Amino acid sequence: MNQIKIGIIGAGRIGKIHADNLLRLPQAKVVAVSDLFAGPELEAWAAERGIGTVLTDSAELIARPDIDAVFICSSTDTHVPLIKQAAKAGKHIFCEKPVSMSIAQTEEALEAVREAGVKLQIGFNRRFDHNFKRVREIVGEGAIGETHIVKITSRDPGPPPADYIKVSGGIFMDMMIHDFDMARFVSGSEVEEVYAQGNVLVDPVFAEHGDVDTAIVTLRFANGALGVIDNSRQAVYGYDQRVEVFGSKGSVAVTNDHPNTAEISTSEGIRKDKPLHFFLERYQAAYVEETQLFIDCLAQGKPLPVEGNDALQAERIALAAKLSSRLRRPVKLSELPELL
Amino acid sequence: MNQIKIGIIGAGRIGKIHADNLLRLPQAKVVAVSDLFAGPELEAWAAERGIGTVLTDSAELIARPDIDAVFICSSTDTHVPLIKQAAKAGKHIFCEKPVSMSIAQTEEALEAVREAGVKLQIGFNRRFDHNFKRVREIVGEGAIGETHIVKITSRDPGPPPADYIKVSGGIFMDMMIHDFDMARFVSGSEVEEVYAQGNVLVDPVFAEHGDVDTAIVTLRFANGALGVIDNSRQAVYGYDQRVEVFGSKGSVAVTNDHPNTAEISTSEGIRKDKPLHFFLERYQAAYVEETQLFIDCLAQGKPLPVEGNDALQAERIALAAKLSSRLRRPVKLSELPELL
Amino acid sequence: MNQIKIGIIGAGRIGKIHADNLLRLPQAKVVAVSDLFAGPELEAWAAERGIGTVLTDSAELIARPDIDAVFICSSTDTHVPLIKQAAKAGKHIFCEKPVSMSIAQTEEALEAVREAGVKLQIGFNRRFDHNFKRVREIVGEGAIGETHIVKITSRDPGPPPADYIKVSGGIFMDMMIHDFDMARFVSGSEVEEVYAQGNVLVDPVFAEHGDVDTAIVTLRFANGALGVIDNSRQAVYGYDQRVEVFGSKGSVAVTNDHPNTAEISTSEGIRKDKPLHFFLERYQAAYVEETQLFIDCLAQGKPLPVEGNDALQAERIALAAKLSSRLRRPVKLSELPELL
Amino acid sequence: MNQIKIGIIGAGRIGKIHADNLLRLPQAKVVAVSDLFAGPELEAWAAERGIGTVLTDSAELIARPDIDAVFICSSTDTHVPLIKQAAKAGKHIFCEKPVSMSIAQTEEALEAVREAGVKLQIGFNRRFDHNFKRVREIVGEGAIGETHIVKITSRDPGPPPADYIKVSGGIFMDMMIHDFDMARFVSGSEVEEVYAQGNVLVDPVFAEHGDVDTAIVTLRFANGALGVIDNSRQAVYGYDQRVEVFGSKGSVAVTNDHPNTAEISTSEGIRKDKPLHFFLERYQAAYVEETQLFIDCLAQGKPLPVEGNDALQAERIALAAKLSSRLRRPVKLSELPELL
Repeated sequence: MNQIKIGIIGAGRIGKIHADNLLRLPQAKVVAVSDLFAGPELEAWAAERGIGTVLTDSAELIARPDIDAVFICSSTDTHVPLIKQAAKAGKHIFCEKPVSMSIAQTEEALEAVREAGVKLQIGFNRRFDHNFKRVREIVGEGAIGETHIVKITSRDPGPPPADYIKVSGGIFMDMMIHDFDMARFVSGSEVEEVYAQGNVLVDPVFAEHGDVDTAIVTLRFANGALGVIDNSRQAVYGYDQRVEVFGSKGSVAVTNDHPNTAEISTSEGIRKDKPLHFFLERYQAAYVEETQLFIDCLAQGKPLPVEGNDALQAERIALAAKLSSRLRRPVKLSELPELL
Repeated sequence: MNQIKIGIIGAGRIGKIHADNLLRLPQAKVVAVSDLFAGPELEAWAAERGIGTVLTDSAELIARPDIDAVFICSSTDTHVPLIKQAAKAGKHIFCEKPVSMSIAQTEEALEAVREAGVKLQIGFNRRFDHNFKRVREIVGEGAIGETHIVKITSRDPGPPPADYIKVSGGIFMDMMIHDFDMARFVSGSEVEEVYAQGNVLVDPVFAEHGDVDTAIVTLRFANGALGVIDNSRQAVYGYDQRVEVFGSKGSVAVTNDHPNTAEISTSEGIRKDKPLHFFLERYQAAYVEETQLFIDCLAQGKPLPVEGNDALQAERIALAAKLSSRLRRPVKLSELPELL
Repeated sequence: MNQIKIGIIGAGRIGKIHADNLLRLPQAKVVAVSDLFAGPELEAWAAERGIGTVLTDSAELIARPDIDAVFICSSTDTHVPLIKQAAKAGKHIFCEKPVSMSIAQTEEALEAVREAGVKLQIGFNRRFDHNFKRVREIVGEGAIGETHIVKITSRDPGPPPADYIKVSGGIFMDMMIHDFDMARFVSGSEVEEVYAQGNVLVDPVFAEHGDVDTAIVTLRFANGALGVIDNSRQAVYGYDQRVEVFGSKGSVAVTNDHPNTAEISTSEGIRKDKPLHFFLERYQAAYVEETQLFIDCLAQGKPLPVEGNDALQAERIALAAKLSSRLRRPVKLSELPELL
Repeated sequence: MNQIKIGIIGAGRIGKIHADNLLRLPQAKVVAVSDLFAGPELEAWAAERGIGTVLTDSAELIARPDIDAVFICSSTDTHVPLIKQAAKAGKHIFCEKPVSMSIAQTEEALEAVREAGVKLQIGFNRRFDHNFKRVREIVGEGAIGETHIVKITSRDPGPPPADYIKVSGGIFMDMMIHDFDMARFVSGSEVEEVYAQGNVLVDPVFAEHGDVDTAIVTLRFANGALGVIDNSRQAVYGYDQRVEVFGSKGSVAVTNDHPNTAEISTSEGIRKDKPLHFFLERYQAAYVEETQLFIDCLAQGKPLPVEGNDALQAERIALAAKLSSRLRRPVKLSELPELL
């Protein structure tokens, strides 16, 4: 495979980011983009970038013989059907998280991928962040011994719009799912049990949709380690993304990135600037790297760095957390089939 | 009241620390010390410090008319009877934590104190630590708005001796009780529900005594805030004592104290020295301040800074955590009477 | 002016970096590259990037009518003649620092630029670094009041090859010239006097070329502020680039960037990774920004952010420092004409 | 020698601090204090501390046979005569810095000490600071290799009263003398040459007394290393006391101590409290340790940790700096005899 020809499905913010990152890779070529609301604006955007084809119909894009792989960046409810279609058409797939909000449907999608023998990468972009990669590396090389405690803090600078909250799937499936993947990634172990509690402390709109805006989830891992994740939909000081892994030989902790290292000392005290504002700023390089690795691995026939099973496992934990929060008791992942 | 005359009951490590700190206060005078194992060594120690009386019998000490207040630094099982005796004798009391491992007994002791009209201060030394006081101050002045999340990390540099583990009352009553008090202190709210999970990851000896060495407890506060505490009996890099409070207007976080600020940069990387070793080093100034405030408040007739109810509430949370860990479900503090 | 057509003179490391950064800018188009040693390798490099023309003769490149601006990235001794030729040909110019090692020649080059009415930007890339820009901003908005002291630390991870040392012009002209520019940039004031001292502590090869590898230079600014710069050719822990400005209302200090924020705590102590290795890593974004601004300003007819006079002033300070070091006394910049 | 009997000469702020620190040492006993302005207030102060004798005449104090050692805490102009008298009387001596503002007189005083065979410790308290001791230790154990660059920042929170400025001896002798001693202490090498420049940027009152309030001094050490010290009489953000030593194998840097580790994050940015206010707060433990070591070394017949020669060398550097500033040229310490 010489140059990977890419079609992008869904030209919202994240679709455009992936497109721009792909444009910089000599081994990739974005040949088409589809969006339900494609129009003159998207056509101009595509023209500027030398993307020759703009479509409204994703099926048409998937059907094109000159496309090797698709990026599925449309809304979550379209992921499963699109994965199935793309797999059937023999296209490799990059799909944003989550694959779906139903374990059964996600499993169906993964089955389609397996059957078709195509490759699927999930957009867990944080795995490619310089800080979290370093945590994984340190843990992986045994520098902190056996893992005992995993702590993840993940807080957004502000809540999403009410329209989004309604269809988001709730904090555990929409927001904390990244942290569930992170927990698996840095610990190198599967989660066996969760206990979730949440509350509405930021904005009553969350309650209207049966959701919470503040949550703490504790985890029990297969290797005996314990974990805890805290989420808030609103950290007024900015995007707060920290991880700590504590083990028998020590700990490794990463904290936020800042736009600069300036420390300003005055008679009022000492201050520094807030962290990088949000995921676009914080994970800019991670987005570049995840697309680069997708292309490189396809080009070289290597396994992809985040696979379908990673989506499935994170979704299972998210679902267990949702149930735990509703049932007000710890939930084992092994209980999932009967609880659903 | 001019100079407060003090008797110290129990001349172990902590009793001696309190004695030395009291000796520096012009308004206090240590006149007697009692210890079951008093002998020539303790007599020499007392003589060096100008403490005139050394006894084996605490009752004799309590009976002395020249004593205004006692420091109860003997083993936990003696706390309740000694508080009762001292209260009856009209002595003010400084008592190490916990008062007892039984809510009923602690309540009896507090009742005796109330009846006698004496004052009782509990040895929650961490409230006097420069870092945690600053957290309380920041939260108290509203700088971070309404409290949403409280996070406490508390890890010892190494486990206590096996003999101690056996009688310690378990990690929740012995170690995490400090953190339960801290949670109440920094949040300014009562805990309503806990979910505790633990594991034996450090040393199998804990399992032999039905105890755990690693634990995560989540809290739900009366004001709706959520909290989480993690404990380990062994952080090989040293005493790890951190607190973070996150609220509607921001967050405040304190981290460990180090013996110096040196940053050493070599071709291997950048390193600094481990945190202050353990509680004697980290809380040295806090121990001084808690005795100073005890004396000052007595001398000036002011209320004491940590009272009997603080012991009771922390013990209730610890007990609920112990039950939660055993029952493997969240426990409301309101359930305690029926569960006991 | 629609799209700026660029010719790159000198296809060494820095020329290639500028080319790659320009390739990402829609408003710029690299149409030609010249290099004395152009050959199949450079042709392949250019072809991959869609750069149509590869030349050995820079004069030929400058003569091309389809070129609006040139990047002069060849060796320092070629800068002045190339600036003159490019100016005469009506091309805008981006030139790497220093323009020359002779004040007279630099002045001639600037005169040619003025006469031709073209624009000239100097490659003081550090002005575009996120940290130093923030220092300038803080100082500029008066947050630290009047400037009293400027401190700059600038140390390379390792010395350049001996061949380079021979023709480098010495530590003041080759390395510290960046810091002289930084001193002017962050203080917003001109330097009036310097005192330079150096020593050979890293490698005797520097002595063989009449150079030093370790130097401290103090500065006196026109506004009365004092300054100090320290340079070392070898910081074994990596590229060390820090600035501090202290004033009547406070101070602002920036420190190094690191590849990640990981803090690893073990029984040995606490460590973090070394700073970003060298200028390519540290100033990657700054290189992007300086070319972006060059193009933007040309396209919009705005003044360029670093002009010829900035090169001249930094060279004058460097020369004064060189003289001070030789004469072992402070040198006023006003003495320069008579001392040369 | 069992218990060291101490007389304190000069009961100003620093004399009282030493007294209080000595009172905590079982091996020391403060038996007398003298002060020109002794009166009821000082008598009350002494009585509270069990110091039996209060005198106005220091000669009377020195003459007392029950005194083993004196602390000279009176004004600088009295140091030399008091050292001579005390030495003649066979008393060991702790003397505040500087011994005098004249090399000749300081040498006379040291000669008297030598002749009498008594011991003399100089109050360079910063050598006992936890941070600077650690720097010395790191350098001493070779962890950073050969020393190349020493950097010292030392800024006061605010200027002293005008009355004090007049008699202070100037910034180099009064303030930077501590840093000259620090330079010798951390480098383990003697200073051979200095170049000093200063300016009046904080308050014109300094100019009235021929003094400056802002100064940068560069140093050349006997071992070839270079150094730089910057001083300001006013850092509005608080006492700024930092040291960095850079060498062939790395660097060690210490920064300020803060009253707590709190980091407060809000929508405005991230802030922390200012450093410990001034020398009394920052060097509290260092003052305790210097008196403790004085007593311990006397009691055990060991050499004192900071001796007369340390005072002499720091004074010589200060004098050379003063001359350099006046002559506007570098001054070698070997030039001192002829320049004076």
